Amino acid sequence: MTDVTPELYLRVTQLLETYGRLIDEDRLEAWAELFTPDCRYEIISRENRDQGLPLSLMLCDSRDMLDDRIYSLRNANIFNIHSDCHVLGPARVEPDAAGLGVSAAYSLFQTNQGGETRLFSVGRYHFRLIERDGTLMIQSAQVVVDTGAILTLLATPI
Amino acid sequence: MTDVTPELYLRVTQLLETYGRLIDEDRLEAWAELFTPDCRYEIISRENRDQGLPLSLMLCDSRDMLDDRIYSLRNANIFNIHSDCHVLGPARVEPDAAGLGVSAAYSLFQTNQGGETRLFSVGRYHFRLIERDGTLMIQSAQVVVDTGAILTLLATPI
Amino acid sequence: MTDVTPELYLRVTQLLETYGRLIDEDRLEAWAELFTPDCRYEIISRENRDQGLPLSLMLCDSRDMLDDRIYSLRNANIFNIHSDCHVLGPARVEPDAAGLGVSAAYSLFQTNQGGETRLFSVGRYHFRLIERDGTLMIQSAQVVVDTGAILTLLATPI
Repeated sequence: MTDVTPELYLRVTQLLETYGRLIDEDRLEAWAELFTPDCRYEIISRENRDQGLPLSLMLCDSRDMLDDRIYSLRNANIFNIHSDCHVLGPARVEPDAAGLGVSAAYSLFQTNQGGETRLFSVGRYHFRLIERDGTLMIQSAQVVVDTGAILTLLATPI
Repeated sequence: MTDVTPELYLRVTQLLETYGRLIDEDRLEAWAELFTPDCRYEIISRENRDQGLPLSLMLCDSRDMLDDRIYSLRNANIFNIHSDCHVLGPARVEPDAAGLGVSAAYSLFQTNQGGETRLFSVGRYHFRLIERDGTLMIQSAQVVVDTGAILTLLATPI
Repeated sequence: MTDVTPELYLRVTQLLETYGRLIDEDRLEAWAELFTPDCRYEIISRENRDQGLPLSLMLCDSRDMLDDRIYSLRNANIFNIHSDCHVLGPARVEPDAAGLGVSAAYSLFQTNQGGETRLFSVGRYHFRLIERDGTLMIQSAQVVVDTGAILTLLATPI
């Protein structure tokens, strides 16, 4: 990991911070712009991942599909039923020839309209990042969730 | 955000770390010293902030008022009824002509005298920082809490 | 804290990230390799620490003892009964003549085999780090846990 300079680490940290904040601010359209056109976004349980089962809780295999998903969310739900708060741990950064492997633990708290907050999900992000026109973008994001007792009607991204 | 160097980001991170730690260590007098004399410290619910309502859960509009508040706390409570643990996410740093805009998500856990820990509050800090004699100080801190089901008898800062 | 460069802070952050991740991935043997041969690893409640009581929840005063502990864990438990997720806050780094004093708040979430996640422990790491052959290693780790209502049959490290 000798190739990771403070400058690179800062850029990755800023991307992770932006990722969580845009979801928390319900700016999902801006959040989707962090991804490349040929991106992949997947939420999978730790159990299924460890057992090599391909069953995802959510899977979008292009930016268009991600946009569609967000468009559906906007039209299916008349008003916001919860607000998110992401608290992320420090990043692990592994550069290779094709880009960057990045992972970070996350905790996600949700607050309902009554102002009650609960722990919604914990787990780890596994990102592949590439540079496009001087900007770090997400080529693939695999969200491995520890918490299996999650709503199957999972609406918003994690 | 091209102006944010690793050096600047480190200084902001250290300030945020100190902010949370001094509260956790119950060193509120030292915590207040992070603020400028003309500071503003406010805790407001996300709901009120989004609706533009000026109703705060706590508001101190000077360093003196902050000191008074802490003095009251020390004399009102004979012993500490809980201990805090702040876990902060990565910072967002936006420099401008007047100083720095900084925000970060936080989770705050409280443990009672029986040793039971509960999630007390999650939300986001919005700080304005300025440099005074080579030190970054907090000119204003707005704590936007997601968790509305908070004690109105809120005692210690968040 | 003027001696803390972004390069040093990054190295410490990477060590903390590795510490939490290796436990979360159940790679305890690799986790133990972060420690020096003459290391000390202790879990102590905040209450006992504040009162100067020497009672630890877990104490290993050498790398061998840490290895033994992990060996016992592997043979006592046929399968893993929970998975961990560590979310760490930013580090405090204090260099001195002998090495580095490092501390960081942590939150630790555990998920059982039914996929239910609960807050298991919050508190603060207090590490002494030294450099050996160009690598930062843990000479002593004191985990001060806020949460006292912890299992006395505490199995895995925090």
